[in-house]
Amino acid sequence: MPAIIQNQRRNMSMCESQKQELVSVNESRRFMIDCFKAFGVPQIHAEQQADLLVAADYRGHFSHGLNRLEYYLNDLSKKSTDGAAVPKILKETPATAWVDGCNGLGAVIGNFCMDLAIKKSKTAGVGWVCVKNSNHYGMAGWYPMKAMKEGFVGISMTNTSPLMAPTRAKEAALGTNPIAVGVPAGDDHFLLDMATTAVALGKIEIQRRKGEDIPEGWAQNVEGASTTDPEQACCLMPLGGAEGNSGYKGYGLASVVDILTGVMAGANYSTKIRKWNALGCNEQADLGQMFVAINPNCFDPDFETNMCDLNSRLRNSKPIDPEMTVLVAGDKEEDNMKAVDKAGGIKYLPDQLRTCKELAQRLNVKPLSFI
Amino acid sequence: MPAIIQNQRRNMSMCESQKQELVSVNESRRFMIDCFKAFGVPQIHAEQQADLLVAADYRGHFSHGLNRLEYYLNDLSKKSTDGAAVPKILKETPATAWVDGCNGLGAVIGNFCMDLAIKKSKTAGVGWVCVKNSNHYGMAGWYPMKAMKEGFVGISMTNTSPLMAPTRAKEAALGTNPIAVGVPAGDDHFLLDMATTAVALGKIEIQRRKGEDIPEGWAQNVEGASTTDPEQACCLMPLGGAEGNSGYKGYGLASVVDILTGVMAGANYSTKIRKWNALGCNEQADLGQMFVAINPNCFDPDFETNMCDLNSRLRNSKPIDPEMTVLVAGDKEEDNMKAVDKAGGIKYLPDQLRTCKELAQRLNVKPLSFI
Repeated sequence: MPAIIQNQRRNMSMCESQKQELVSVNESRRFMIDCFKAFGVPQIHAEQQADLLVAADYRGHFSHGLNRLEYYLNDLSKKSTDGAAVPKILKETPATAWVDGCNGLGAVIGNFCMDLAIKKSKTAGVGWVCVKNSNHYGMAGWYPMKAMKEGFVGISMTNTSPLMAPTRAKEAALGTNPIAVGVPAGDDHFLLDMATTAVALGKIEIQRRKGEDIPEGWAQNVEGASTTDPEQACCLMPLGGAEGNSGYKGYGLASVVDILTGVMAGANYSTKIRKWNALGCNEQADLGQMFVAINPNCFDPDFETNMCDLNSRLRNSKPIDPEMTVLVAGDKEEDNMKAVDKAGGIKYLPDQLRTCKELAQRLNVKPLSFI
Repeated sequence: MPAIIQNQRRNMSMCESQKQELVSVNESRRFMIDCFKAFGVPQIHAEQQADLLVAADYRGHFSHGLNRLEYYLNDLSKKSTDGAAVPKILKETPATAWVDGCNGLGAVIGNFCMDLAIKKSKTAGVGWVCVKNSNHYGMAGWYPMKAMKEGFVGISMTNTSPLMAPTRAKEAALGTNPIAVGVPAGDDHFLLDMATTAVALGKIEIQRRKGEDIPEGWAQNVEGASTTDPEQACCLMPLGGAEGNSGYKGYGLASVVDILTGVMAGANYSTKIRKWNALGCNEQADLGQMFVAINPNCFDPDFETNMCDLNSRLRNSKPIDPEMTVLVAGDKEEDNMKAVDKAGGIKYLPDQLRTCKELAQRLNVKPLSFI
């Protein structure tokens, strides 16, 4: 088939799908709440979990939104997550708390811990909370955002199932172990939310589906050699890639995340963490997480003014390509939210919508409706 | 000249230089103390600065040891650093302190701040100290090491002179902005000390001297394109390298360092920071730094046992090459210290020793003696 016809067909199908696939933020949230409630999750927990997931879709991080719903529901179905569990404090000081997540839903645990860190930072200047017995807590950036709303700096990290090979190793011993840091800056902000691997697994899956190569430094084959063939990808490589390109720094950062989360909280860490997929898991996750809030008023009073100035200096750096402006962390997500607002809803992939249709039938909840 | 003769000559000169260049740790320290005192630096400040610098050489980080002495001395000579200044606390809470470094020597300020963070973490569980009006504080890993001696986790960061181009930019707006994290683990430990650029400037200088190419992803030319020619290197690239290889993550991390140091402390940040070289600088640096100590006893009581286990799991990951064992952060430095102990001293480059000879003459201090 000539390329031009291929393109026309693709454009037609995109137009059809655009009409069909737009879901309002509220409707996506409603659907997720209904699904959680079908598994006996209390309303208030279901809302927290749905708020987190829909925020990821709204911000353009589709891998961490509606896409994760099935994972969470199947863990509830297999009773490896307790949807009604409430976290409890095991030990505390003026600035710290050690929390048992009691195997509850990730967002319920994460919100509890970040709120506690914020509360402590109001009096002690900083609040540092570690939790064990937690579950996948969604996009790491969600928790710093809570601190930012109070004018505080927020930091959060979580360990995850092993996927990354340490530098010089040919098997996985650490997860994608993300770090999120959020900083208020008047009407502006800074929000970094990054895996410590070169890329997340999803990016390799997309290349595989497209039948395209992946760049050097993303993944290793079973022998531990860097591979450009997504079919051969066996382990993720750390941020930086190979040892000669400073991949040992990404490996070091992923280790720091595991130390400040799993090891410090007394949760699982490294190869002790279970594998996880959309079918859920019979084994409990027992993940470790860290939540930190810092009150910048304890330091220089001009913090937010200077933050605005820093963002300006970075964005106004001379661009290599005048069409590609220099961004600061969080700018892409801001643009995505504006685009969703303008369109009136979130555009999900047909695959995702098929899964939701099946879930609606399986759980006997009202299917997603479209705009 | 045939290659074989070149090699012989090189080997001969290496043998000669090995005999000639070995300096004991104590003698290197003595020489540095004498040099600082020649500029009127009080004994106790000179000792602190020398302890830091010689520790870097002992650990194999030559760029941050005796190599930096000239920079510090020339700043003292130009009175852009005040060798007698003592830091003062501006504001504090149970867990935080905002400190004015009063433009003193970096190690004096850094030690003051880290000791304060440790003291606070003993009662509050965590101590978080930010300092402004500071100077270059040497290897970032020095400060977490102080916390580790108390059984605490230590974190330190500093901003530095602009050298790194933000992703999509063709001019420098951030420094090499290092992050150091130290963790005790019984007789073992973990100590990450990494620049958030792909590599430090020194690595590119070495390739330039050798007349060899640099790998893709280390540096950009004046147009902002990645270059493999060290002569064309104009700005460092962030950890990760190009945008497609997640260089925006290294850029994000470098920004976080600038925020938690320069912006939070009310010091200089980004392009406000002066350029710096061996000749010293007339302008004050006003760098910002952050020092955090966390008492792991506030969390899981099995922390150190589990840290040992994590280190073992990482080191015992199946190696790609059985001759290249998997390391954890800090292992290379441990090996270097053992090698120095075995040899009986530190082997400095002839260039470095020439500089020391000139310094001894210029300052009228006793020259370095060799083993």
